[in-house]
Amino acid sequence: MTSTLFTNIGELATNDPGAEDLLGLVEDAALVVEGGRVAWVGRAADAPAADEAVDLGGRAVLPGFVDSHSHLVFAGDRAQEFAARMAGESYAAGGIRTTVAATRAATDEQLTSHVARLVEEMRRQGTTTVEIKSGYGLSVRDEARSLAVARQFTEETTFLGAHVVPEGTTPEEYVALVTGPMLEAAAPYARWIDVFCERGAFDADQARAVLEAGAAHGLRGRLHANQLGPGPGVRLAAELGLVAVDHCTYLDDADVDALRDAGTIATLLPGVEFSTRQPYPDARRLLDAGVRVALASDCNPGSCFTSSLPLCIALAVRDMGMTPAEAVHAATFRGAEALDRDDVGALVPGRRADLMVLDAPTHVHLAYRPGVPLVRGVWVAGRPV
Amino acid sequence: MTSTLFTNIGELATNDPGAEDLLGLVEDAALVVEGGRVAWVGRAADAPAADEAVDLGGRAVLPGFVDSHSHLVFAGDRAQEFAARMAGESYAAGGIRTTVAATRAATDEQLTSHVARLVEEMRRQGTTTVEIKSGYGLSVRDEARSLAVARQFTEETTFLGAHVVPEGTTPEEYVALVTGPMLEAAAPYARWIDVFCERGAFDADQARAVLEAGAAHGLRGRLHANQLGPGPGVRLAAELGLVAVDHCTYLDDADVDALRDAGTIATLLPGVEFSTRQPYPDARRLLDAGVRVALASDCNPGSCFTSSLPLCIALAVRDMGMTPAEAVHAATFRGAEALDRDDVGALVPGRRADLMVLDAPTHVHLAYRPGVPLVRGVWVAGRPV
Repeated sequence: MTSTLFTNIGELATNDPGAEDLLGLVEDAALVVEGGRVAWVGRAADAPAADEAVDLGGRAVLPGFVDSHSHLVFAGDRAQEFAARMAGESYAAGGIRTTVAATRAATDEQLTSHVARLVEEMRRQGTTTVEIKSGYGLSVRDEARSLAVARQFTEETTFLGAHVVPEGTTPEEYVALVTGPMLEAAAPYARWIDVFCERGAFDADQARAVLEAGAAHGLRGRLHANQLGPGPGVRLAAELGLVAVDHCTYLDDADVDALRDAGTIATLLPGVEFSTRQPYPDARRLLDAGVRVALASDCNPGSCFTSSLPLCIALAVRDMGMTPAEAVHAATFRGAEALDRDDVGALVPGRRADLMVLDAPTHVHLAYRPGVPLVRGVWVAGRPV
Repeated sequence: MTSTLFTNIGELATNDPGAEDLLGLVEDAALVVEGGRVAWVGRAADAPAADEAVDLGGRAVLPGFVDSHSHLVFAGDRAQEFAARMAGESYAAGGIRTTVAATRAATDEQLTSHVARLVEEMRRQGTTTVEIKSGYGLSVRDEARSLAVARQFTEETTFLGAHVVPEGTTPEEYVALVTGPMLEAAAPYARWIDVFCERGAFDADQARAVLEAGAAHGLRGRLHANQLGPGPGVRLAAELGLVAVDHCTYLDDADVDALRDAGTIATLLPGVEFSTRQPYPDARRLLDAGVRVALASDCNPGSCFTSSLPLCIALAVRDMGMTPAEAVHAATFRGAEALDRDDVGALVPGRRADLMVLDAPTHVHLAYRPGVPLVRGVWVAGRPV
């Protein structure tokens, strides 16, 4: 088994949970990869011999981003809707229906090629693990094939039949479909099940019914909640002991307490607030209360068509009260936790060697240099991609 | 002379001033380059024959960005100052002195290599013309060599000795130095002269003295003004008939009227407001009043270390009331106007063939997909770079 030494690393963020600082930073560092996993990390001066070496020229190395929330399976383009919104129209969840029509009309090959392009775009920006949801099919056939497409790219597939109630059906009929034949068809391709629990989408009872039906099929629950206004979703997530609940823009004190007590991760998606001009979620409040916070892209064609976790980090630092270290940790280690993964999200012995090299000396530059494509190289399981 | 046909362009932004729409958009377009210049533009179906062809796969093509305001000649890094500011400290112009010390200590080779890296980084993001200022030397020797370094990369060099008053000298002494020996030494390498006209830097009388001295040496004037608060700089720029005045964050009605009446361009630099959490300038107000608005990066290590005009466009659309078309136009055509250049900034016959290809079907995606590195390819004078 060939071993590779990555050396001359100016700053290595290990995310070692045993380190004194959040990112487990090591300066003048090196890292050895063997069999696709991290075999050793430490000071370059102490590095063991390896079969081959990669000199990183003093650059910073971080774990690959773990993007725990995206909607990549779709067709069509909503650039004009975006421009209209920027000119003053408010975001309407109904815009989803445009994408549903285009997605249903697309072939499997078209959907696959579209997802491939976005996954490749994410990789170039440092994302090495991505969760992908369905939710633009909203029919038995189209949800199942959306997940079959997603499954070609990631193990982290999420059935989001309960994204919005499609036209021509009542909420009651649709929940029965989602929890019945649609779930039957989708479950073989999904690890997770998710519901958009929001006024105008699904209420708490409907969300609970969907999550319980998913659990009966072996799917673990996640939730979209408290994005557009206050609501019961976050407390439901805590009550059910979900690993993560996503958006969390409108929280009262009871919501924050519930998240802390349940240990449920709040996954914040600041690209959405950037792209819709909504208020940002208050990451500082959550962190100060002892809630774990993850950052993800929510890449989707409607409310947030960015795939850039570097931008999300810059926004989290500028507008959500996170330090650069907290934001990087949230997009790597916490992202992995939000997917209940202990094999990615950190560069410590035994974890998969998913890493990015920045054209910068430290992780701070991801926030200090907003918009600049700083990711110079990406390795997945120790191989350049 | 070889001619090259760029064809299968989904959307071509020509910036043709004679077109009915601001960007002079042509769909299903083609463009012919000969001798480094645009020879023909129009519908692909009507394109003339050429010696070679480049198929752009339906992607959007724009003129290269013209970044009319940057400070690329410096050494050192202020990432920690940035992190401290994000944690609550307010922006202090004094931070410039850190960079001055590092710049003075750097060799010419170090400065050159640093500028080369940033210019290359800009090119990858679509910038094909860049103005570069001195202003971190603040001594006769260091201002002159800063400009000599900048001149290796661009014709658009700007002497900004009047950036801040260095330690150990009075404002009066320093203005005498700037308008005397420093100007003598700098003028051979500069096209423009600039002053930071702001409370705590240089007042209107000092700015006028510097600009007039520059004019006597054949340098054309520009100004930093009204960035941190209201002030006389914008009206001075209009009175002197400067081609552009930069920042323009704090304007009263008389300022706006003066800009319109003088035809002076307001160059807005939203990366600064993003990176310092200051209020954004109101582009909409300026445009509605009939003022021409340019967008530039202000790339510098202190208040704004982004080199990304795509990010500036996204911010202008989100936070400054510009449409995507206005923002793209401001970063291309208006940028060229702000440098008094009629050979770049548009893709019409006779202009230099500086263009970018987006991994997107339309220019709107630059705002719709914030943070995503959408620039797939860049050509300068018809050659890929």
